[in-house]
Amino acid sequence: MKLIHNSSELVTTVGGAQRGHTLGALQIIPNGAVAIQGETILEVGTSTDLLEKYPVAERIDARQRSIVPGFVDPHTHLVWAGNRAHEYEMRLQGKSYMEIMAAGGGIASTVNATRKASLDELVAQAMERAMRAFAHGTTTMEAKSGYGLDLETEFRQLEAVLEINKAGPIELVPTYMGAHAIPVEFKGDTAGYTRWLCEVALPETKTWWLKHAPGQALPFVDVFCEKDVFEMDETREILQTARDLGFPLKLHADEFENLGGASLGAEFNAASVDHLVKTSLEDIQRMAKSETVAVSLPGTPFGLAQSEYSPAREIIAANAFLALATDLNPGTTWNESMQFMQALATRYMKLTPSQALAASTINSAKAVLRDATIGSIEAGKQADILILSVPDYRILTYRYGTNMVADVIKKGKFYSQE
Amino acid sequence: MKLIHNSSELVTTVGGAQRGHTLGALQIIPNGAVAIQGETILEVGTSTDLLEKYPVAERIDARQRSIVPGFVDPHTHLVWAGNRAHEYEMRLQGKSYMEIMAAGGGIASTVNATRKASLDELVAQAMERAMRAFAHGTTTMEAKSGYGLDLETEFRQLEAVLEINKAGPIELVPTYMGAHAIPVEFKGDTAGYTRWLCEVALPETKTWWLKHAPGQALPFVDVFCEKDVFEMDETREILQTARDLGFPLKLHADEFENLGGASLGAEFNAASVDHLVKTSLEDIQRMAKSETVAVSLPGTPFGLAQSEYSPAREIIAANAFLALATDLNPGTTWNESMQFMQALATRYMKLTPSQALAASTINSAKAVLRDATIGSIEAGKQADILILSVPDYRILTYRYGTNMVADVIKKGKFYSQE
Repeated sequence: MKLIHNSSELVTTVGGAQRGHTLGALQIIPNGAVAIQGETILEVGTSTDLLEKYPVAERIDARQRSIVPGFVDPHTHLVWAGNRAHEYEMRLQGKSYMEIMAAGGGIASTVNATRKASLDELVAQAMERAMRAFAHGTTTMEAKSGYGLDLETEFRQLEAVLEINKAGPIELVPTYMGAHAIPVEFKGDTAGYTRWLCEVALPETKTWWLKHAPGQALPFVDVFCEKDVFEMDETREILQTARDLGFPLKLHADEFENLGGASLGAEFNAASVDHLVKTSLEDIQRMAKSETVAVSLPGTPFGLAQSEYSPAREIIAANAFLALATDLNPGTTWNESMQFMQALATRYMKLTPSQALAASTINSAKAVLRDATIGSIEAGKQADILILSVPDYRILTYRYGTNMVADVIKKGKFYSQE
Repeated sequence: MKLIHNSSELVTTVGGAQRGHTLGALQIIPNGAVAIQGETILEVGTSTDLLEKYPVAERIDARQRSIVPGFVDPHTHLVWAGNRAHEYEMRLQGKSYMEIMAAGGGIASTVNATRKASLDELVAQAMERAMRAFAHGTTTMEAKSGYGLDLETEFRQLEAVLEINKAGPIELVPTYMGAHAIPVEFKGDTAGYTRWLCEVALPETKTWWLKHAPGQALPFVDVFCEKDVFEMDETREILQTARDLGFPLKLHADEFENLGGASLGAEFNAASVDHLVKTSLEDIQRMAKSETVAVSLPGTPFGLAQSEYSPAREIIAANAFLALATDLNPGTTWNESMQFMQALATRYMKLTPSQALAASTINSAKAVLRDATIGSIEAGKQADILILSVPDYRILTYRYGTNMVADVIKKGKFYSQE
């Protein structure tokens, strides 16, 4: 048994994911403590009470710092090979999108590199990023395939996710995203690729998964619903097929244009619809009538130096569930830190520090359908807990751009960054 | 003797600070190496050549990663007490500036806390920030007083700077900034406070300095030239007095309004004029005709979620010296990382990665008048060198928000982050 005690404050949500204006309701226990039995939270209280109640527990001194739940990052493209620094430089030198494409840039460049990479290479490169996220407080992270677009590479990406998950300590939530782009083999034939996804790739993925990850829940299926990628009809076809096969669903929607993807996600009861920059009020209202979480990815507009972010105020006003994620990927935003997403969300989406925290913990846990077991510090939940290097959780957003997590507790096990 | 070898690339400017379009001209040596004798760079070359030439040197393996010069941060308010997280939250809750002031917020809040803090408290709080900056690659950092506004506290801040400098390993460049705000004792009497600064504070500071830092060059004197703070006439008076006393000069100008401060700084041959958001083309052209460095502080607009940054393109086109700094402070931007400034400068000021690097090394060294001894990896210079955790210096800006410095070499001494 372990007892984390002597915090400045223990900060958590209680009672589950937070809709609309309930977002950011926190329980703050001054000098809070948490008792951990194995991988599970046994009890939460004041240090005085719990030190008296559990005198023989192994003690972890929080040194008058803030204790918060482990962050859940519900949207990443963790597994890829190579980097696109050259492309980033070309953009800044004023080269056009077409010139960059002509030089082999864009997502095709990452697909090429990922197809060529071995499983070991994929694991090594993704592991460095996963451990960096973990050091910055992400205890659970969703991770998508989608840089293979053929069966072999997509499965290698999923295998990398399974391997990292097995190695730990970070916990990954796998997603199959063959519907990330149209591969060169189907250039100009989105309908053909969609048909292949539905008739071949999705059933094969299910078969592969049951063989390679026996006993584990099926991965999410995610679709990039966007103009000139997968539009509404194709997205519907893929979601329908995936749902019929038993996959839980996620959706990319409204990053660049509003097609109605958010409403489609709600209709299909997707766990989350993500991006939501150009989302209409009507779409927001449909999401608000569902259990689908609206996941905002503020790193993407920041990474691209765009000024428009998700309409967080409207999402909250409509009574929907709002969560944050990094969108970690090699094109638009290479950033592993959920702390930085909170810093962005307070500045550019005008969330309060407490709303940003809830959107990075309990609500982002709901976006990967794990809010029953992670995302808050409550008795019975998995012991995924952070000790910050600062005494006030609000400093996480006010101060920014460096790591303010001192120690990570994952499944009850203690990992110090200091 | 030490030999850092086996890098992916050794990246540096050569030949001094870079004006206008020469900004970002780099020497990139694949598989580069650097030989260090004591605190000084002895020779720069390829690993093959230097390993052969210096077979008995102690070897530091750069593990096929990038070697770049240590970052110089030429504008920080490093030394303060307390934090303003509560104020940050109030702002996000929609409270007005006046309500925040009424609740004791703003710079007055930091002045109060700093006046109450002991020297040990100031050193402890500033040291944590200084070491964080060091871990992120800042080997030399300017540090201002200016949260005391009375002699006693200003001197205590300067003493904290001297203590941290003595403790090392980071090197601090001190600045006296009594002209940071109008203290409550002179409320409504800017003329009176200006007179006190010129007649009492500046001469007393010189006397204090000569006694407490014998043999050390006088600190910079800096003035916050801005509407409703120190306007042009007062700024001129303070700069004139400081120059007559032998202080080197710096200036805050054009953060919120254009008063002509940049031209005034150039006229006084200030080492740098900083902020420069609202600077006119005429002011930029005057700076370009001087040796005064234009220091942009992109963390400030970012911290405040403002969309306007320094006109970097115009500064470069006019043939001025452009540098970057953090502006680390407890109000507008609490961030220690020069890496993050480079990430911002490429996104929001459209610098290329090479320009951002030069603006954070040789040009920022010039902004503290130390470009002859630091800011590049050249024979005869002080051995302030970084080994990144990535193999391409451009990743420093493309990837963002976490620390990509693996090892810091300061005055030839090796500090590993891994």
